[in-house]
Amino acid sequence: MRAITIPTFGGPEVLTPAEMPTPEPREGEVRIRVAASGINRADLLQRQGFYPPPPGESEVPGLEVSGVIDALGEGVPGWAVGDEVCALLAGGGYAQYVTVPAGQVLPVPAGVDLVSAAALPEVVCTVWSNVFLTANLQPGETLLVHGGSSGIGTMAIQLAREVGARVAVTAGTSAKLAACAELGAEILVNYREADFVEALRTATNGEGADVILDNMGAKYLSRNIEALATAGRLVIIGMQGGTRAELDIARLLTKRAAVIATSLRARPPAEKATIVAAVREHVWPLLDAGRVRPIVQASYPAEQAARAHEDLAASGHIGKLLLTWPESR
Amino acid sequence: MRAITIPTFGGPEVLTPAEMPTPEPREGEVRIRVAASGINRADLLQRQGFYPPPPGESEVPGLEVSGVIDALGEGVPGWAVGDEVCALLAGGGYAQYVTVPAGQVLPVPAGVDLVSAAALPEVVCTVWSNVFLTANLQPGETLLVHGGSSGIGTMAIQLAREVGARVAVTAGTSAKLAACAELGAEILVNYREADFVEALRTATNGEGADVILDNMGAKYLSRNIEALATAGRLVIIGMQGGTRAELDIARLLTKRAAVIATSLRARPPAEKATIVAAVREHVWPLLDAGRVRPIVQASYPAEQAARAHEDLAASGHIGKLLLTWPESR
Repeated sequence: MRAITIPTFGGPEVLTPAEMPTPEPREGEVRIRVAASGINRADLLQRQGFYPPPPGESEVPGLEVSGVIDALGEGVPGWAVGDEVCALLAGGGYAQYVTVPAGQVLPVPAGVDLVSAAALPEVVCTVWSNVFLTANLQPGETLLVHGGSSGIGTMAIQLAREVGARVAVTAGTSAKLAACAELGAEILVNYREADFVEALRTATNGEGADVILDNMGAKYLSRNIEALATAGRLVIIGMQGGTRAELDIARLLTKRAAVIATSLRARPPAEKATIVAAVREHVWPLLDAGRVRPIVQASYPAEQAARAHEDLAASGHIGKLLLTWPESR
Repeated sequence: MRAITIPTFGGPEVLTPAEMPTPEPREGEVRIRVAASGINRADLLQRQGFYPPPPGESEVPGLEVSGVIDALGEGVPGWAVGDEVCALLAGGGYAQYVTVPAGQVLPVPAGVDLVSAAALPEVVCTVWSNVFLTANLQPGETLLVHGGSSGIGTMAIQLAREVGARVAVTAGTSAKLAACAELGAEILVNYREADFVEALRTATNGEGADVILDNMGAKYLSRNIEALATAGRLVIIGMQGGTRAELDIARLLTKRAAVIATSLRARPPAEKATIVAAVREHVWPLLDAGRVRPIVQASYPAEQAARAHEDLAASGHIGKLLLTWPESR
């Protein structure tokens, strides 16, 4: 099979199409003939050598795919060859075929095309596990999403709105903010022009955000805590603004607040399966009904992975970028 | 009535017995004729001017008492004049009489004497709300308690052991560690002689603590995170080691861990009532059955409050220190 590999760490140009052995599904796994591979910021870090795959996982990047099941390992109830699916991976998604534990597989929702379904697993599982399972966002609460127009952001807005929460976002252009508004965000902050702490305070009568989904890490730590409401929860899932910052514990204590940092990839398959099952129960009906949808900016033929990585790094997009494998269909 | 007041901020010597008007219970409140007042480290901070009472609350220190209900406001079902009780207060406990919302009142447990019951409300509510409601300690998990021989510590050990968790403690003398062991702590670390991170690692096969109950704040932040297990929860309830420290977000993210800082006193009465109700449901049966007990080092006549504060600050004690008001019985 063809795959996009990382022979040496570096810029987008190191991404190299190559022939590799097609993987065989082990017990409890399915094999998917890939239609599309979702691109995540983590893939860029892995390409640069900053984010090695978990032990035992493929060195090929790619944390999510959509496609068609073409083989089953032993002991896989509930799935059949020919099923159109998408899946959350620990790696290996930039390839024509991938094997994955059956507990990390989801059906393609009604009304979502096979390619676009590759935009769902990582984003939906990340948002659901962090914003809902970990931070326990409640109806009537306010969620602040940094990078509201990202793949994660566009899904977080939609899901929070569905549970009856109010959504605030930051983004760097008015076009991105307009896209967030269209998805249901009510408080729009252009971080190039305004201080999000002050904007949140004004928009919430001084209360602040009950939950913050953050991708900046150190750079925003103290301002995020400032923007939190009493009993607020800051969930850090990215560190684009650095990894170390001073924590004002007294401020945190006064607010009775929590700082949580998590990632999805390193979790053991049993935990991923729990998250996938929760997502299938709570989010899939919303996708089936068309109330929530994947936001895809562009799809690139897989051999143009380098260009896709450049575009993701440039952050001009709204929603997700995908790689497609038309020849495998 | 007599009360212990803080006319000016300063050392223990500023604590001054004085005559004050006896408070009248408002709607939803009971008045308690106080038998004993629990002493908490927060009282020392308040005396020094670092911990003002919440707006509208008494300037008299004291966050918990035991005694006998001697008057009821309007709308107080479930309590009667003459009931022996203890109560969680927002302040005002160093006095012969105190009024308190009925939702913050608990019966004196069977087998606990009226004076010793003053050792329970703050400690039990703090431990239950933080270790169980917030950090969700589970059977089989490991809890690390800093200051294991304190009032909080001695209760945390007993309650964690009751739910089937394993308990590690730090303390500064072998006598304190022996007291912790007698209450059920299994991993004993003399912080003057050993590094708790290393000791935890050795005792848990490298896994670390699932929950840490911390009273040190900044001084221990980075070592606490180091000592956390995957998906661990650090709950900071005191800042005896300072308020600001560098947070290594990447380390936190790798562990998928949470840093939570909380306090009980500033919570609104409705939240306190929720905690008190949970405590009555889950902890009171253990106290009634004698499986868990208040650990009281000493009781001082209320006019010796200054000496009691000196002794608490010197940290030679194991468990709680109380003030008694024999003349009010």
